Amino acid sequence: MTEQDTLQQFQAVTESLESGSTMQTRYLLNGALPAQDVARLLESSPPKERKLLWDLIDQKNEGEILQYLSEEVSTQFLSQMGTEELIAVTEQLESDDLADILQNLPETVVTEVLASMTAQDRLRVESLLSYPEDSAGGLMNTDTITIRPNITVDIAFRFLRRHSSLPDMTDSLLVVSRTDKFLGTLPLTKLLVADPNTSIREIMDTETTVITASTPENEVAQLFEKLDLVSAPVIEEASGKLLGRITIDDVVDVIRDQAEHSMLSMAGLDDDEDTFAPILYTSKRRAVWLGINLITAFIASYVIGLFQATIDQIVALAILMPIVASMGGIAGSQVLTLVIRGIALGHISSANTRWLLNREILVGLINGLVWAFVVALLTSFWFDDIKIAYIIASALIINLLFAALVGTLLPITLKRFGIDPALAGGVILTTVTDVVGFLSFLGLATIFLL
Amino acid sequence: MTEQDTLQQFQAVTESLESGSTMQTRYLLNGALPAQDVARLLESSPPKERKLLWDLIDQKNEGEILQYLSEEVSTQFLSQMGTEELIAVTEQLESDDLADILQNLPETVVTEVLASMTAQDRLRVESLLSYPEDSAGGLMNTDTITIRPNITVDIAFRFLRRHSSLPDMTDSLLVVSRTDKFLGTLPLTKLLVADPNTSIREIMDTETTVITASTPENEVAQLFEKLDLVSAPVIEEASGKLLGRITIDDVVDVIRDQAEHSMLSMAGLDDDEDTFAPILYTSKRRAVWLGINLITAFIASYVIGLFQATIDQIVALAILMPIVASMGGIAGSQVLTLVIRGIALGHISSANTRWLLNREILVGLINGLVWAFVVALLTSFWFDDIKIAYIIASALIINLLFAALVGTLLPITLKRFGIDPALAGGVILTTVTDVVGFLSFLGLATIFLL
Repeated sequence: MTEQDTLQQFQAVTESLESGSTMQTRYLLNGALPAQDVARLLESSPPKERKLLWDLIDQKNEGEILQYLSEEVSTQFLSQMGTEELIAVTEQLESDDLADILQNLPETVVTEVLASMTAQDRLRVESLLSYPEDSAGGLMNTDTITIRPNITVDIAFRFLRRHSSLPDMTDSLLVVSRTDKFLGTLPLTKLLVADPNTSIREIMDTETTVITASTPENEVAQLFEKLDLVSAPVIEEASGKLLGRITIDDVVDVIRDQAEHSMLSMAGLDDDEDTFAPILYTSKRRAVWLGINLITAFIASYVIGLFQATIDQIVALAILMPIVASMGGIAGSQVLTLVIRGIALGHISSANTRWLLNREILVGLINGLVWAFVVALLTSFWFDDIKIAYIIASALIINLLFAALVGTLLPITLKRFGIDPALAGGVILTTVTDVVGFLSFLGLATIFLL
Repeated sequence: MTEQDTLQQFQAVTESLESGSTMQTRYLLNGALPAQDVARLLESSPPKERKLLWDLIDQKNEGEILQYLSEEVSTQFLSQMGTEELIAVTEQLESDDLADILQNLPETVVTEVLASMTAQDRLRVESLLSYPEDSAGGLMNTDTITIRPNITVDIAFRFLRRHSSLPDMTDSLLVVSRTDKFLGTLPLTKLLVADPNTSIREIMDTETTVITASTPENEVAQLFEKLDLVSAPVIEEASGKLLGRITIDDVVDVIRDQAEHSMLSMAGLDDDEDTFAPILYTSKRRAVWLGINLITAFIASYVIGLFQATIDQIVALAILMPIVASMGGIAGSQVLTLVIRGIALGHISSANTRWLLNREILVGLINGLVWAFVVALLTSFWFDDIKIAYIIASALIINLLFAALVGTLLPITLKRFGIDPALAGGVILTTVTDVVGFLSFLGLATIFLL
């Protein structure tokens, strides 16, 4: 099934909805389209259509669709459900997905949903709820297949055959002691080629990467990426007891979120920004960012104001000054983006900061010289004034050097103070390149032209 | 092993290198550190140290480390090797990694490396080389375990036991006909719970997602994410023959690259930008982007120049004009970022463009009104001039509306013409918000203040 097919199906749903053919829409939403596509369709729909579509989905299908929805959108539906419906819907979910959903619901509702579950399921979900959502404990699932080390391969096969099915993404059996202490893993690929009479203890991997429940999710993602894991056991740090396992499908979500986080933050947007959220809600969120930027814009204007007298005499300065500021901003944001990515990938540490700074300043100098020459040439033709050309060229070089300096050191410093460089970096950088740009250009002009 | 440990190990290598203790460094690089960490260390090192470290790595370990290096860095090392060394090193690589590497080497070297291989291996690699690197064919591996449909589960077990080991990430056996035509998959989890006397044909999945060799890699990634796959078979479109399989570890790389692509492109950076590449090389790459932005900066200056006479009379305009342009740029880049992400996630199509545009224009209007009021207030205090306050407020609203319009429609239009919206979007948007910002503010001032 290609992207094209999906688009055509979307079109089909939209058309059947518009034509008022409820039957046809119902048919598409309840089985004809895979749950993942229905989820995407809901996320791609404006609020009103989204609600209409959701109402056409049979209750028995809601659970499966819910787990593919972003948190923002699923909470929207769940918060409007009665407790009974909630219980019916959540019954079909895996324990980790259920825990994620419960985390966004009011305390009283959570208690009622938990009360409706069997004792064993409740214990599982409660244990998941006790870990932060962005830790290994919050990411894990409790659907492990465990075996004892003292049985033989042949008995393991017979034990497995007693199951009617194994959980998805089961690539290893987890070997535990009588007290549930984690001992090692037995990859299925190893089990399948083993002699039937060997004991599990002899062939299990004991040097498996174990993840403790409190490990932050980004470290979990790095481990999965580094070691090419499909699943990994999660243990309780103090006791060494097996708690569950994390599977690659959940890690892929973390990796995507992580990689997207920087891009969204740099524009002052939230990770869970819903493209189709209500207008007032979105306006309020974005207003904050615009407000912060207004402060920096007024700071830049204040700097220009300092040179009011100079501009009053030479109006060409007002025409040219945005060029210096803008080039500094662009050069700086290139450095900033690269350094933020380098930090995220773990390529940048105190060991190579100085080397990196030297490099960026040299790159800034080279590009400063090249473009200063071009700008000077263009300016001297435009205003027929060689002095202004010299001044704008000098200001450009100064600003590109500052851009390199701030672009490199700012994210590293912010990171050290525990501030997200992707979020705060851009605003501070632009403020610096604006202020330095206007200050150097108008300052030099005041000194040499008046 | 935590992030902290890795950093400490890096420190150890750096120190042992600086202290001239070659023995210690050699020990760390050849076995004491996992290959993935050595790769990261190399990528985090400036060119000179990188070369020094590489020279200390034993030839037998080079192959494993190479496959974890980014293309940019690995090509750097490979291009300096003699053909014999190259053959020795590449012998240890998996066929897909080898094909990726060969794609970056000169034709003559490729021929020699291929000639050194066994006929079977050569055929495999040549078949991989015949597909573009960013297609399913380029992403796949040929290490499949295939079985025939007419054998029983018991015989399948015996067949598997004849292998000394199964390839990593083997989560299913691939069922093929006598002529290698793909028939279905048999997940190991299904095999393990099956009755030994059933035939494979009875229990195999025939509705498996098959990927044709020409499928673009981003579609492959979407399929893996949507269907939570660990591996998927790749077939030749015309004949239906099984060619190989794609595994999640390679798809994770695609997903990360995809997600990073937008962020890097928006700053005019290449995907494979190496944080520690040579200075002249980097300068040249970034210069192009600065040059493009210089053109847009001059366009903005030209617009200001049109109002030279106005600024000459009211210098306050020069002080305030960057505020209007900057707020438009920020608001626009928020919309742009969100729409680019929405397109990448497949949430935005022609079906909801108009709704999205209405929404963004409304958000722009609300924020325009709010911040216009604030700016007007601040301006009237600063310059003690109510007329300028009215004018800047009106210009701000106009610019925020344009920002919403262009931020929404521009990426959708660029995409339709096959232009990468992340790359071209930002420059065009800033040009528009600068021009509209200066034009509306200075234009209104010329009409109402002179």
